[in-house]
Amino acid sequence: MTDKNIIETFLKPESVAVIGASKNPLKGGNRIVNNLIYNNFKGKIFPINPNADGIIYGLKFRKSILDVDEDVDLAIFYVPNHKIPELLKECTQKEVKGAIIEASGFEEAGELGLKLKEKIIDITENFTKIRILGPNCMGITRIDADSDAKDKGGFFSSFAVFNKYKRGNIAIISQSGMLNGGYLMHVISKYPDLGIRYSCSIGNKMDLSEIEFLEYFIDDPTVNVIALYLESFKDPRKFIELSNKVRTIPKKTIILVKGGLTRQGQIASFSHTGALAENGKLIEAIIKQSHVIQAKSFYELFQFARTFSMVYESNKKLPVKGNIAMVAGSGGSETITADLATAQGLTFPKLGDKTYEIIKNFYPTWMPFNKSAALIDIWPAMEKEMIKSKNTDAVTKAVYEALINDPEIEGIFNMLFVSRLFRNMTNLDILTKIARETEKPMFFWLIGEIKEINRVSKILSANNLPEFPNLSEMVKNFQILVNEGKNKKNI
Amino acid sequence: MTDKNIIETFLKPESVAVIGASKNPLKGGNRIVNNLIYNNFKGKIFPINPNADGIIYGLKFRKSILDVDEDVDLAIFYVPNHKIPELLKECTQKEVKGAIIEASGFEEAGELGLKLKEKIIDITENFTKIRILGPNCMGITRIDADSDAKDKGGFFSSFAVFNKYKRGNIAIISQSGMLNGGYLMHVISKYPDLGIRYSCSIGNKMDLSEIEFLEYFIDDPTVNVIALYLESFKDPRKFIELSNKVRTIPKKTIILVKGGLTRQGQIASFSHTGALAENGKLIEAIIKQSHVIQAKSFYELFQFARTFSMVYESNKKLPVKGNIAMVAGSGGSETITADLATAQGLTFPKLGDKTYEIIKNFYPTWMPFNKSAALIDIWPAMEKEMIKSKNTDAVTKAVYEALINDPEIEGIFNMLFVSRLFRNMTNLDILTKIARETEKPMFFWLIGEIKEINRVSKILSANNLPEFPNLSEMVKNFQILVNEGKNKKNI
Repeated sequence: MTDKNIIETFLKPESVAVIGASKNPLKGGNRIVNNLIYNNFKGKIFPINPNADGIIYGLKFRKSILDVDEDVDLAIFYVPNHKIPELLKECTQKEVKGAIIEASGFEEAGELGLKLKEKIIDITENFTKIRILGPNCMGITRIDADSDAKDKGGFFSSFAVFNKYKRGNIAIISQSGMLNGGYLMHVISKYPDLGIRYSCSIGNKMDLSEIEFLEYFIDDPTVNVIALYLESFKDPRKFIELSNKVRTIPKKTIILVKGGLTRQGQIASFSHTGALAENGKLIEAIIKQSHVIQAKSFYELFQFARTFSMVYESNKKLPVKGNIAMVAGSGGSETITADLATAQGLTFPKLGDKTYEIIKNFYPTWMPFNKSAALIDIWPAMEKEMIKSKNTDAVTKAVYEALINDPEIEGIFNMLFVSRLFRNMTNLDILTKIARETEKPMFFWLIGEIKEINRVSKILSANNLPEFPNLSEMVKNFQILVNEGKNKKNI
Repeated sequence: MTDKNIIETFLKPESVAVIGASKNPLKGGNRIVNNLIYNNFKGKIFPINPNADGIIYGLKFRKSILDVDEDVDLAIFYVPNHKIPELLKECTQKEVKGAIIEASGFEEAGELGLKLKEKIIDITENFTKIRILGPNCMGITRIDADSDAKDKGGFFSSFAVFNKYKRGNIAIISQSGMLNGGYLMHVISKYPDLGIRYSCSIGNKMDLSEIEFLEYFIDDPTVNVIALYLESFKDPRKFIELSNKVRTIPKKTIILVKGGLTRQGQIASFSHTGALAENGKLIEAIIKQSHVIQAKSFYELFQFARTFSMVYESNKKLPVKGNIAMVAGSGGSETITADLATAQGLTFPKLGDKTYEIIKNFYPTWMPFNKSAALIDIWPAMEKEMIKSKNTDAVTKAVYEALINDPEIEGIFNMLFVSRLFRNMTNLDILTKIARETEKPMFFWLIGEIKEINRVSKILSANNLPEFPNLSEMVKNFQILVNEGKNKKNI
């Protein structure tokens, strides 16, 4: 069986056994069955528990996997570590193709754990009889359809319960189960429009690792963004090769958080996934040669993933020069943004003559427009317009269209002050229409009342326009687009 | 009149004239009067407008300030720039002590603006006849009591409308009016427990600057945290002198965002407040010698201010070594935190023997506790406890108390997974009680459902326990406490 076939089996099994299924709703073995059923897993499910009788969610318990008289693609283990070897042996007898081991207590737990690992290697004949995902993981989640669709769900094998989700273009590969469980739940709750295609928890990666999943996702046209959390590189050479392949594929990006960059981080990751300390300079070299987008926290990982997801979804063009414009009603925020942008290598270029000629007409004589950098304090123009018109639509249209038509500018930062009282100050319909129709990325920074920010943020998000809680993050997220634009251009 | 007296007049005037008061609620001159009245300004208010008759909010309009037959402490101008010199002349005749000029179009607006400035210098006899705040500013806000108190309000002179606010220990001095207006509104809506004492918009600082306000706030016992946004230093030597004085005062901290650190930033700040380019190395030297806490964005400014506000409010001890512990249910988040902490110079020390002896007993044999660094993955201990007890309170109590009693540890990072379904997993009462009673700062990182995060965040906030949206910010905010601890220790 090729690696591609086995990953296909893990992502899209036709039959699964849940070893450790339980009637007790507080136990993970119960939640896994619940998660599979509730999220419309289309294949067969066999609950296995030597101590349970009767049925669970309408399915009959078996004492052992050997009692199942049909083929089983995957066994999902939710039992304590010391029970795994024997049960795994039964799986090999049954010719189960793969096993997801969610229990911890292996490489990361000292001598006893290492002995268990050796037993597993022995039983699986070095993973030739059966392939292993984990241990110490949260399994696989595959989303085929949104949770509010009629045909919702896909394949949900973790013990974390997912009720609300959207299908999208992001695939997650993570050595932290939390990222596939509680944190993913958090991210989905925070960014309700963020769509996920796969979430793969690879844990200690005793057998299968980031490499096999990466290979699969590179070829999967439903995936645009691969979000990775690694505590070690299984095969650095192969990782670099695969990442560089991604550079040649339009609309495909890898974002990596590497844990254990420092001695303290390595102490933590050793207790976590048993990751052995890697040389700091070597890690740096791998990341540099792979040209992946590096994030420094889980928060950044998903924020970057959201940005690329939206940019690809809305067919925006990746910037390559780092030339940006900003439209704001606050000189202070433009000053800070200009400082932050400089630190990230971004430039607010001088406006083109044509752009300048269009915009300057909207400015009052007592506050002439400054063309020396694409930092547009739109407030004086809006004030002037409000004196003669009922609204500022003409200014909005003219300024944004002029900037979009300026060939030097690759994207636009926008500050919006949002408040229930001043809803008429910004015509969101006009702005989102302009932003949808241009191929230049437009990023937003919203200030004002939180409730109103949430309302506007939803509208922007539905138009694939990312909104950021602060200027640093807005700048940083544009900078990674430039990095990726260069990555893809310079290959 | 000394500087202290004049600042007292600006912060606590007994009578104000609003020049440019208007019946039209869309105009700033209307909102200023509204803001003063709605927020219980205790002094007298005189609306001035040559083109208005009758009354506004029960107050009689005057055509000119010269028609007022009582003393006027402050004149608040909301009229276009070119009208200011003549009206200011009337103020000097009336012997008004100070003027707040909210209009823009002076130093930042080129030649015409500079001519206006010269006229003002002439009329005010170089600011000896009347002192000026601004121009290009949002005035002064002084909060005496919370908006939901019976005797709510104080002195609200900006044209930004504030309905909800709390009195607290933070004073803001800013060259960006947005920071005193829309952004402050945003911050208050985002952190509803954040208390503000003063918000001073100094604009172009034609006369009064950060220096006079700083001097005042250093001596004001109601102020613990001074949040500064500057585009230029009015008097670097004096700034360094004052900032170093703050180092000798317990529970007093200055946080500074300096705009215009880069050439691009200086282009923006010149168009904004007319700030002249300062030498980058000089700025760096001023900040270094002043030992203020530097923030790099408005977001950081208020987040740092909130952290210090809470830490001082709850009588926590500032760390000086940078030794921190972390309690989390996720090895991945500890790995990332350890990496981030290393980059910020923080250390997770080895646990003391006593601490180790207490904590290790809670761990199962299959997952022994690792004492090599104060990174506590509490999950195995909680799982073990849940098997024998109904809850995990014993583990929570023992682990936190052991860490608090460990003399090497100066603070604790806490990750909490919060979810409606799993509310019983964390006993918030126990945790907040422990956190309130210790003098070691405890910081929180919450993941889970946004609604539940908001609920828990409110509880933490009411106990002066800051919660952060990501690990980088949690680490950074502890690092600034260490910086300030060292600042105050090493003087």
